[in-house]
Amino acid sequence: MIYKKLSAEEAASFIKNDDVIGFCGFTPAGCSKVISQALAKKAEEEHAKGNPFKVGVFTGASTGDMIDGVLARANAIKFRSPYQSNTDLRNALNAHDAHYFDLHLSELPQYLRYGFLPKPRIAILEASSVTDDGKIYLTSGVGISPTIARLADIIFIELNRYHPEALAGIHDIYEPADPPVRKEIPVYSPSDRIGVPYIQVDPKKIAGVVETNLPNEVGKFTPADEITNRIGANVANFLSSEIKAGRIPASFLPVQSGVGNIANAVLGAMGSNKDIPAFQVYTEVIQDAVIDLMKAGRVTFASGCALTLSTPALEDVHNNLDFFKQKILLRPQEISNSPEVARRLGLISINTALEADIFGNINSTHVVGTKMMNGIGGSGDFCRNAYLSIFTTPSVAKGGKISAIVPMVSHVDHSEHSVKILVTEHGVADLRGLSPVQRAELIIENCVSPEYKGILNRYLKLGQKGHTPQNMEAALSFHVAFNQTGDMRNVNF
Amino acid sequence: MIYKKLSAEEAASFIKNDDVIGFCGFTPAGCSKVISQALAKKAEEEHAKGNPFKVGVFTGASTGDMIDGVLARANAIKFRSPYQSNTDLRNALNAHDAHYFDLHLSELPQYLRYGFLPKPRIAILEASSVTDDGKIYLTSGVGISPTIARLADIIFIELNRYHPEALAGIHDIYEPADPPVRKEIPVYSPSDRIGVPYIQVDPKKIAGVVETNLPNEVGKFTPADEITNRIGANVANFLSSEIKAGRIPASFLPVQSGVGNIANAVLGAMGSNKDIPAFQVYTEVIQDAVIDLMKAGRVTFASGCALTLSTPALEDVHNNLDFFKQKILLRPQEISNSPEVARRLGLISINTALEADIFGNINSTHVVGTKMMNGIGGSGDFCRNAYLSIFTTPSVAKGGKISAIVPMVSHVDHSEHSVKILVTEHGVADLRGLSPVQRAELIIENCVSPEYKGILNRYLKLGQKGHTPQNMEAALSFHVAFNQTGDMRNVNF
Repeated sequence: MIYKKLSAEEAASFIKNDDVIGFCGFTPAGCSKVISQALAKKAEEEHAKGNPFKVGVFTGASTGDMIDGVLARANAIKFRSPYQSNTDLRNALNAHDAHYFDLHLSELPQYLRYGFLPKPRIAILEASSVTDDGKIYLTSGVGISPTIARLADIIFIELNRYHPEALAGIHDIYEPADPPVRKEIPVYSPSDRIGVPYIQVDPKKIAGVVETNLPNEVGKFTPADEITNRIGANVANFLSSEIKAGRIPASFLPVQSGVGNIANAVLGAMGSNKDIPAFQVYTEVIQDAVIDLMKAGRVTFASGCALTLSTPALEDVHNNLDFFKQKILLRPQEISNSPEVARRLGLISINTALEADIFGNINSTHVVGTKMMNGIGGSGDFCRNAYLSIFTTPSVAKGGKISAIVPMVSHVDHSEHSVKILVTEHGVADLRGLSPVQRAELIIENCVSPEYKGILNRYLKLGQKGHTPQNMEAALSFHVAFNQTGDMRNVNF
Repeated sequence: MIYKKLSAEEAASFIKNDDVIGFCGFTPAGCSKVISQALAKKAEEEHAKGNPFKVGVFTGASTGDMIDGVLARANAIKFRSPYQSNTDLRNALNAHDAHYFDLHLSELPQYLRYGFLPKPRIAILEASSVTDDGKIYLTSGVGISPTIARLADIIFIELNRYHPEALAGIHDIYEPADPPVRKEIPVYSPSDRIGVPYIQVDPKKIAGVVETNLPNEVGKFTPADEITNRIGANVANFLSSEIKAGRIPASFLPVQSGVGNIANAVLGAMGSNKDIPAFQVYTEVIQDAVIDLMKAGRVTFASGCALTLSTPALEDVHNNLDFFKQKILLRPQEISNSPEVARRLGLISINTALEADIFGNINSTHVVGTKMMNGIGGSGDFCRNAYLSIFTTPSVAKGGKISAIVPMVSHVDHSEHSVKILVTEHGVADLRGLSPVQRAELIIENCVSPEYKGILNRYLKLGQKGHTPQNMEAALSFHVAFNQTGDMRNVNF
């Protein structure tokens, strides 16, 4: 290897206050693990000396504690985009200690290229191998790697021996040209390869390689429970009835599914529903459920941006690469989340709502309208462009003190226009072709928890006239009641 | 001509209670003018006899009084999608006498094909000519015509002699296949032709032809004034500074522009700004300003869905078809508003807000959160996928009693994620890469009317913590004050 071997500390020493850094990876999969920690330590040392030290951080999506956690605790983040899910960073950005710019994930690479956001001077990429002529083979997450590798002046590689070199070939790296000379993104089926299996860079830009041998920091998802299983069954039954009605082709369509225990329950229910044929996945995050269904022959192919797997599942993939490399492709998020491709393929998009309203608007991000939870992630890329866009949520939280369905969501991430089907454990509301009042009646009837039906029906009749009968004095009364009493059932109208 | 010549009344006699009708046209351009009126008369007669008579109505976008006005006054509309702008229909849907389903315009044709919405049994198309082998040449608007012509069992043609037969060739008709066999929409430049200049149908489906000779019902737009001219200048100066900064290519990018007097002022200002090169337009509605700029050599090509021109401007086009057919293409709204094409071409998208909030969310549709004004139209198709998405609005309305910029919009059509630049007569807020608090400070500083700056700054400091510092008790206080006192300046917090 022609590259200089560095310690993480040596690599971090290149990074200066006010630098902008692009990190490889997507969700903890494929993220930097050691240079980021050394960087946090350097920040703390600089702060101890009384020196300012903060950096701008771009990633694919969320990271592990080894990027967002350590840097947030070191108060070393000046700004952050496009997504996060780390407790310490969440606290920092809600306290305005770090500026967070929440973005549709597909948009970040092009906004970096267009010059709309600060250019990353440094790219830090995790690789399973790197060649002397500048071919970088990534690990289990792609994210924004191709773009930051091209834009950055300096690249550091974390060569992670935990990932077998034989992983090479699972990635499909393609970066579109920019307008006015952009062409189509030629993906016509989830399995279509359109690029090359590596990122090609000028070897001179690789300032050093840090060797590691560390697994991804993929946390445990909450296991499925009775509520999530009922949501999963409702989604699966709805989809099989759509096939019977001829509104979904009998051969089915590729599935995009969000992250977490509801998504796992939905995929599980779809896998065990005999009326749904074996299907393909075109998504951002490939979770354990997809691997299980693949082994059972129920998922025939999965295209994603990251293998966000538990350690046993990832080792299963590593140990059976001949099998899985035929069935899995990892793409940059600009392609995995491409609106063009989502609409062309006709994705069935299934995402989770934090909060929904009776008119069909979705809040994916803000707790009681103010505190950022994680970010919008890819949900906007997918739901707006899907063949059919489904949102799921348990009907209540905190033992009923919070209704997930309110008169007006406290923050809108997905408008009524992007939400076709709403599913809770109680049932399914098919909102297609309905006016706001019709949607409200159906959502209250089919999806709302019984203890909130009366309150929401009363809200609907509060008397303000119009297409969408919102009452400006009471629209946020559920949130006010929760802030004041800790229980939305104490609404005052 | 092999087709049966019918009177409008004879054609209307085919239409039954509960029928679903698809109308040609987009904005009043190219809409049905006489069958719709005969249908309204028939509905009134049936109602007088005590019989129910309502129909479902799909169109491209808004129509003239000759569809939406007469049918609404006859109480003959059961449901309506995807857009309207007629006073009587607006009153009807705000009173829930007609169910209105507001939709991104690009989505309607595919939702009709997918079976997500009731199938139109009857299509009514305005044509400039029709051949015996079923080739229909449209007039000045395309809308959803190709799809309804294919799906309907029966087609009526309004053969409008007002439009010259030589218009043939200005249309480019292309309907994509549906997933899972859809391919790319091969538009790489606004002038790319990808289809044929006519709609091909089975001649047996054409149940009759009604001859007319009537201009489009294009209303007068409010003329530009000092406020709109300042908005226009702010947009043009901002765009020229982006060229200088290298964030927009020196060759510029295709422009999408909304409808109305602000859009006309913006286009006018761009046309007279010497730092902006002659440009192309890729939009839905081609207004008078585009024709003026074309004649002045400042617009080199315009692709749209409709020629929504004043009668003098349309006659100018008709009289100079050799010139204009080289420079204008009319496409179905599925193509003119295609998210895939918008993102590939890299549109500079300029749309008007009814209301914006300090965090960058946009309300395009609902007056004080409840009353529908028109609909979302194509703004969502364009702004979400644009290279750069700009929203414009005068900072106040009703002599200052309404601030167009509020703490929280009363309805969200475009989330913070789709809004990059906000422009009022006072200035420009460039929101790219900013956190919600940074956006709020910038919008208040640059865009808000002076008399509201203090109130909005006070709102920002109300003390609720979090990434987006909304206060659930005061977020809609501007709207409550307006409802109670007629003046938002009387907020109570």
